[in-house]
Amino acid sequence: MNPVIVRRIRRADASVITRLGVAGVATVHEAMNRSGLMRPYMRPLYPAARVAGSAVTVLSHPGDNLMIHAAIDVCQQGDVLVVGLASDSTDGMFGELLAVSCRARGIAGLVIDAGVRDSAAIAEMQFPVWSKAISAQGTVKATPGSVNVPVVCAGALVRPGDVIVGDGDGVVVVPRDLAEDVAARSEQRMKREDATRERLANGELGMDIYGFRQKLEQLGVRYVDEE
Amino acid sequence: MNPVIVRRIRRADASVITRLGVAGVATVHEAMNRSGLMRPYMRPLYPAARVAGSAVTVLSHPGDNLMIHAAIDVCQQGDVLVVGLASDSTDGMFGELLAVSCRARGIAGLVIDAGVRDSAAIAEMQFPVWSKAISAQGTVKATPGSVNVPVVCAGALVRPGDVIVGDGDGVVVVPRDLAEDVAARSEQRMKREDATRERLANGELGMDIYGFRQKLEQLGVRYVDEE
Amino acid sequence: MNPVIVRRIRRADASVITRLGVAGVATVHEAMNRSGLMRPYMRPLYPAARVAGSAVTVLSHPGDNLMIHAAIDVCQQGDVLVVGLASDSTDGMFGELLAVSCRARGIAGLVIDAGVRDSAAIAEMQFPVWSKAISAQGTVKATPGSVNVPVVCAGALVRPGDVIVGDGDGVVVVPRDLAEDVAARSEQRMKREDATRERLANGELGMDIYGFRQKLEQLGVRYVDEE
Amino acid sequence: MNPVIVRRIRRADASVITRLGVAGVATVHEAMNRSGLMRPYMRPLYPAARVAGSAVTVLSHPGDNLMIHAAIDVCQQGDVLVVGLASDSTDGMFGELLAVSCRARGIAGLVIDAGVRDSAAIAEMQFPVWSKAISAQGTVKATPGSVNVPVVCAGALVRPGDVIVGDGDGVVVVPRDLAEDVAARSEQRMKREDATRERLANGELGMDIYGFRQKLEQLGVRYVDEE
Amino acid sequence: MNPVIVRRIRRADASVITRLGVAGVATVHEAMNRSGLMRPYMRPLYPAARVAGSAVTVLSHPGDNLMIHAAIDVCQQGDVLVVGLASDSTDGMFGELLAVSCRARGIAGLVIDAGVRDSAAIAEMQFPVWSKAISAQGTVKATPGSVNVPVVCAGALVRPGDVIVGDGDGVVVVPRDLAEDVAARSEQRMKREDATRERLANGELGMDIYGFRQKLEQLGVRYVDEE
Amino acid sequence: MNPVIVRRIRRADASVITRLGVAGVATVHEAMNRSGLMRPYMRPLYPAARVAGSAVTVLSHPGDNLMIHAAIDVCQQGDVLVVGLASDSTDGMFGELLAVSCRARGIAGLVIDAGVRDSAAIAEMQFPVWSKAISAQGTVKATPGSVNVPVVCAGALVRPGDVIVGDGDGVVVVPRDLAEDVAARSEQRMKREDATRERLANGELGMDIYGFRQKLEQLGVRYVDEE
Repeated sequence: MNPVIVRRIRRADASVITRLGVAGVATVHEAMNRSGLMRPYMRPLYPAARVAGSAVTVLSHPGDNLMIHAAIDVCQQGDVLVVGLASDSTDGMFGELLAVSCRARGIAGLVIDAGVRDSAAIAEMQFPVWSKAISAQGTVKATPGSVNVPVVCAGALVRPGDVIVGDGDGVVVVPRDLAEDVAARSEQRMKREDATRERLANGELGMDIYGFRQKLEQLGVRYVDEE
Repeated sequence: MNPVIVRRIRRADASVITRLGVAGVATVHEAMNRSGLMRPYMRPLYPAARVAGSAVTVLSHPGDNLMIHAAIDVCQQGDVLVVGLASDSTDGMFGELLAVSCRARGIAGLVIDAGVRDSAAIAEMQFPVWSKAISAQGTVKATPGSVNVPVVCAGALVRPGDVIVGDGDGVVVVPRDLAEDVAARSEQRMKREDATRERLANGELGMDIYGFRQKLEQLGVRYVDEE
Repeated sequence: MNPVIVRRIRRADASVITRLGVAGVATVHEAMNRSGLMRPYMRPLYPAARVAGSAVTVLSHPGDNLMIHAAIDVCQQGDVLVVGLASDSTDGMFGELLAVSCRARGIAGLVIDAGVRDSAAIAEMQFPVWSKAISAQGTVKATPGSVNVPVVCAGALVRPGDVIVGDGDGVVVVPRDLAEDVAARSEQRMKREDATRERLANGELGMDIYGFRQKLEQLGVRYVDEE
Repeated sequence: MNPVIVRRIRRADASVITRLGVAGVATVHEAMNRSGLMRPYMRPLYPAARVAGSAVTVLSHPGDNLMIHAAIDVCQQGDVLVVGLASDSTDGMFGELLAVSCRARGIAGLVIDAGVRDSAAIAEMQFPVWSKAISAQGTVKATPGSVNVPVVCAGALVRPGDVIVGDGDGVVVVPRDLAEDVAARSEQRMKREDATRERLANGELGMDIYGFRQKLEQLGVRYVDEE
Repeated sequence: MNPVIVRRIRRADASVITRLGVAGVATVHEAMNRSGLMRPYMRPLYPAARVAGSAVTVLSHPGDNLMIHAAIDVCQQGDVLVVGLASDSTDGMFGELLAVSCRARGIAGLVIDAGVRDSAAIAEMQFPVWSKAISAQGTVKATPGSVNVPVVCAGALVRPGDVIVGDGDGVVVVPRDLAEDVAARSEQRMKREDATRERLANGELGMDIYGFRQKLEQLGVRYVDEE
Repeated sequence: MNPVIVRRIRRADASVITRLGVAGVATVHEAMNRSGLMRPYMRPLYPAARVAGSAVTVLSHPGDNLMIHAAIDVCQQGDVLVVGLASDSTDGMFGELLAVSCRARGIAGLVIDAGVRDSAAIAEMQFPVWSKAISAQGTVKATPGSVNVPVVCAGALVRPGDVIVGDGDGVVVVPRDLAEDVAARSEQRMKREDATRERLANGELGMDIYGFRQKLEQLGVRYVDEE
């Protein structure tokens, strides 16, 4: 409730973070029983953007990016900035200069429930960003906020130190304590999917592989031959 | 009203479908007196996506992709899956494994009034998809629906066997019985546009080519020289 | 209130327009004390689109592109068409043929608070367009409107002859009389940013460069060491 | 595809229409296996609005209400006008004068996938209207359309003569041929709900009445005593 | 571009403002050849809200209501506050205390392209408000803006001293210099509509009164007897 | 991550809850330093709806209301059901029968990030509901979820036992441990506002009461006399 900056947070193991990044958003989300996904309006700034890292969270007033500066100060190499807002805004709270600063400090990426500007320059730098909008709308530095408190970003709860995975499918949040377990489940899932993929590529049908013919019958779906 | 899967549908002639695909969405839509277009929120997953094929329609509960599996089973080579929902949803009802299965069965593309996941993998496969959203949100397989009944997809009525044409401008639906006539009208239109394009490229104006100067006068639009 | 076409407008100096184009949308918007920006739903048709030119404004009835034809007739080399509507619409009021005509007349680009069609062809021509939507929805030529009157486009007021700057960050409008002053301020800003960029790239923090540590203290933001 | 006005349509039996109106939108929609519902953005102009009648359908160009006039001409006492558009619009295509005309002809109500104006006067007349928006935006009478062809309205397919039921929960469409069956199923459902309502009012739980405790167990939902 | 507060503005004649208020939004908008209307997302806080007055305009940073205080200071009895924002926001920039202050100063109403809070108290006071949202989201007083400069509010251009008319159909802006002419045209229109209303109430059709049968024929709309 | 129902939760003191309800949403939100507010799309089903109670939280799959039944089972007298969803949906997950059941069990209200149906009947019962939509769209009971875990509802984090306050301005969430402190701060705020209200009602200006004249000067806002 009162603005605070938390300097030190616990993070998941680096190797676990890497494994979650390899698995990707869709697989990790399924491995978490379909939880933790941000709303689909969060889109990468450029198609090849991919990231996995520990969340340093920022709670900002809309149209004010003062707290992003404060957050960069407490980030470690490999962290991902996650910015949530008290109310909806598309203002461009992050631009090229901040991206240069993040890169210099080893920050791995940005996830922001608002807008970003200097989109071409950031894409050229290949600094991974997921945002709600691209907007040149400038911001002020006038209102207090917090760093490293739990925030809601694009409909998902993010706690400091949670693992953030982002790719072309969006962004998923893995609670720090579950990270290792989710990594293991993601890898099992990928193995199972490899096997299924081969069968499907050979022309087998999901209907047969997963036993959906009986399910349809149980659900009362009737087959007819012609229109 | 009761869930049903129709196994056999009538389709338009393959050569007519090809001609409609060559004409493209904007031309076909004009040739149909500006009807049949899906709402513009339907966007291709990758810029070069293009498709023309016969609609196999799917009516699904939001967040449930069971009926897509059932529909793949009744598709023929060259068909386009068209998925409509009972209510709005952006959940990712279609992903890479289903795309592999579609490709293996010769299905030409997907048009879905919901989300898709594994967007990078599907784009790399060059499997043409038009959707409302990209979302990793996983789905269940628990509720009945129908295959090959009339559906509403993105504001357009689609009957099984209608011709679906998709490109960078969106998706248009051509009723099967009108397909040949629309193909012919599209080709006439393209010829007329070729002639107009040449005149415009040479600096003639639409104002003069189409006789709009008189029209403006009739409508009471007045010219003044300066601000 | 009554439909009118103004033939002659005053324009900013060509060299000033060029300088504003070099500065780009985000810088120009800041140099104007964060004013003049169109809403962020205005997006370029292709990523590399960039434009700077004098506004020829069009006020159209939704779904009717008659007045765009009238506006092309009064454009000069280097002008940018800016189309505002009386009410919201995504219909495709501009397509490839109009782009060919614009190119032939030396028009530099289009900004339209509605849709465009033939998106692939226009992108291939590299004719710069910013729009609210891509839609094949055809339009009629039946209702009067105005050319070169003040219009509202995507939330911004545009007067005939204002300088329009567009790039990947959106579109900003510079009042004609302020154009030279804004160009100068933009260039000063770019110089300052060059210096700041170098310091940030070397690992200095915005917190220190801009003196935000004191500001946070004044605002009552408290530091704590651990969660 | 070509504009047409169909003068005579078949309608459901008047007593069946009345029974569907008594059942109301939520019940009728359930009795149709949860199909036929328009999107929830369709809202009544005043809270007490209720209607049941046979659809006379209108397909209009956005911003043009010419075809509504044509449709009133072919309506019978008790019909409901259903207006679908080729593309999205909120323009006020219907106002007080048209409501007066509808009332004089015995038309029972209006369902329009666009805007209405003169909202206070229409509410005072108690003429039932469901619309997407309230907007004074005036319209033209310049473009052709159709009357009594199948239309899509707010995501639902409406065929001429289908039964339209509207209340505070929105609008549902009952295919004419199913109307009697749906009325009967609605009434059975209401009886069952009366019995359930009494049990719930007495403090019994849905968990016990519907047997959800076992279902939760089968689905793997675990109970724990404390946080 | 630089923040400024203009103390004195010219206003339309009080009797003209009254006449425009009597005519109401839909009529005034038509009398202006369908121009000047704000977007339909602007809704009255309570159904009976009605206002007509001279615009005192406010340009604010989103989430900051400092300039509304400054504007109240320069208002005269009967003025209407019109608040435009540099970017989209729904924050509650106006609440009961400000309404009390407005009432005490004789201000006639508020039109704000953002949110308001204390909705119940303001409705009870019968202080007329049109807004984009109802939101308790509190705001800061930290950033400069302007009073009595041209602003864009909900898609409409508003100049200081323009006449603002608001009712259940939304809000329309009448340029000060046209106010008298628009009032006269509105009254002529109301008279014509009174005559038409009577004919329609007696069962005559718009088709016949306006001569639409020939128009439909010219447009190629064909009549058929049966489906 | 795994579905779980927590039977017992801690709640705030009943008298504190009452005091927060008296203060209302706008005041409580300010007393929490402008945090805890749900997004403004959450609207009461009827204007007079007001509630204050302890949150029993529900995490549901969209279009499936099984877990609401499970939650009612663990509610105590005076609790408020708060339903969050894994992805966006407007389906009507709650209707009259559930409202009857809630009333019978003494549940004080419902806050749901989805739709409700039977809106007229629930309003007549005066059972307080805040929702994203009104929709008759029926739901299934097929997928697992959780009760009394932290959920995100309309952009706000809600933990079981947090105090929920709802009125015409929306819904605010007070963390249980802060409830007493927030109640006290709310009451202080109301006292201060009573004093300010009286001064404003007597014609004093916020400009003078809050000292904004100096602030404007510091911010560089310039006064000019005339346009």
